[in-house]
Amino acid sequence: MTWRFALVIEPAASDDVRTDFAADFRTIDPAAPALSVGELSTQRGDGIFESIGVVDGHAQEVQAHLERLAHSARLCDLPAPNLAQWRHAVAIAASHCPAGESVIKLILSRGVEHGPAPTAWVTAAGAPDNSRVRAEGLRAVTLDRGYDIGVPARAPWLLLGAKTLSYAVNMAAIREAKSRGADDAIFVSSDGYVLEAPTASLILRRGDRFVTPAPNGGILHGTTQLSLFEHLDRGGFVTAYETIPAAALTDADAAWLVSSVRLAAPVRAVDGVEIAVDAELTASFNDYLLSPRD
Amino acid sequence: MTWRFALVIEPAASDDVRTDFAADFRTIDPAAPALSVGELSTQRGDGIFESIGVVDGHAQEVQAHLERLAHSARLCDLPAPNLAQWRHAVAIAASHCPAGESVIKLILSRGVEHGPAPTAWVTAAGAPDNSRVRAEGLRAVTLDRGYDIGVPARAPWLLLGAKTLSYAVNMAAIREAKSRGADDAIFVSSDGYVLEAPTASLILRRGDRFVTPAPNGGILHGTTQLSLFEHLDRGGFVTAYETIPAAALTDADAAWLVSSVRLAAPVRAVDGVEIAVDAELTASFNDYLLSPRD
Repeated sequence: MTWRFALVIEPAASDDVRTDFAADFRTIDPAAPALSVGELSTQRGDGIFESIGVVDGHAQEVQAHLERLAHSARLCDLPAPNLAQWRHAVAIAASHCPAGESVIKLILSRGVEHGPAPTAWVTAAGAPDNSRVRAEGLRAVTLDRGYDIGVPARAPWLLLGAKTLSYAVNMAAIREAKSRGADDAIFVSSDGYVLEAPTASLILRRGDRFVTPAPNGGILHGTTQLSLFEHLDRGGFVTAYETIPAAALTDADAAWLVSSVRLAAPVRAVDGVEIAVDAELTASFNDYLLSPRD
Repeated sequence: MTWRFALVIEPAASDDVRTDFAADFRTIDPAAPALSVGELSTQRGDGIFESIGVVDGHAQEVQAHLERLAHSARLCDLPAPNLAQWRHAVAIAASHCPAGESVIKLILSRGVEHGPAPTAWVTAAGAPDNSRVRAEGLRAVTLDRGYDIGVPARAPWLLLGAKTLSYAVNMAAIREAKSRGADDAIFVSSDGYVLEAPTASLILRRGDRFVTPAPNGGILHGTTQLSLFEHLDRGGFVTAYETIPAAALTDADAAWLVSSVRLAAPVRAVDGVEIAVDAELTASFNDYLLSPRD
């Protein structure tokens, strides 16, 4: 991964109607010291983020990511982000991305402890080469997420559904999957329903029907899943949000983990049980996901 | 809060037998930029921490904090910290703390994304004035933590029991408590057992018996609770770790939230139900907790 660019943002109020926010931006060396040790993002994982895929300098689905950033901010009681300001910052970051695939990250932190205001920044970096996992697929294991499916509705302070910087558990789940000889994890609720992967959404195919776990189960509403469902709808397929029992994973005709940078990775096994990989359909998904999308 | 001091550490291997680690330390301005945007502590809350109380320049219970740091590192698959190195860093930080109360934080991060090694630093800052909450107590609300009491044993990837930097939920719980007119939260398991507060341990008194939730329920083993239990044992009281139903909270003769910096704060109400505050006993607890402890 190559760092390409970093921009520190002075967050504007959400009702600031400017269209040019350049005066709020400060370009920095992404490898240089930029954040103080008092940063609450660092001390408490207290902030939110988005990762946006960039293909040949085009940032994908920016609006969907910005809307989710605003949604996460609401769940975390952070000031509403000024989406025009973030859009401007993303455009600048994208202009620093060369041909090929990159990733732009947006981070909104609660700020420095006892400081006056949130801090915010945008980075751009080269994306890892995901061509192999897109073609060959990955092996997943299911891991208990600890919550039953009703928890998110009754305990909003658990921030389920917000994309917070507190991702230590997500990272630990991926390590656990690798320690079991797999590539990735699929979280399952304590009462046996499929949720999501630590950094991706799950899509299952049953015949001509494509389903994904309903996002009210405390999972992130995946921007790539949303985009792919629109694509499938246009192609005449049926798409649906469902409460999916874990047993349905290995009964599926095919399964994918989809995310903004890795895009569509076919799941070739769950807990050691093989699942068919539809190479042609997967390739068509990734052709679409690599095309410019807004 | 006043920043007093910050020290960046080049982490030594756990089997490095030096006794002087000064060459690994770099003093920095705590308000100045020190961390890069690629820090995984910031991007993912991926690291661990400890907060050590300091009274008149004496760092309290350093060994217990270092042992918990090592425990958290094991749970998070981080390299084992060199405790002699951390102890040396704490001693330097403590030497920058004036009379009165301060707090030293230890942070061990997984490092910069794709970087070679973990990053680590120690800060010292003035502690807030907690004299009022120690004397007058606080009002708490119970909040569902979402997990049943058996989850930690069966799902170690959830990192329950590790003091990670992913504290967004802990911070959200305190905000939720304040939005309900209370001062702090007490987490309860989804099956109705008392766990801990977002940044403190709970101790209940029933007659001459003091109980705290058993730490195998996925809670942190509180260093202040441990120290206070030793004190109570020496005073002839009975102390015990128990699985405590939530209903026992308001049946208790007294209750405290105890932590390294706020020390013993009596709980004067839970969910609006008043609990007696034993001012004399609480004052004796805090006298002890403010005395030099190793």
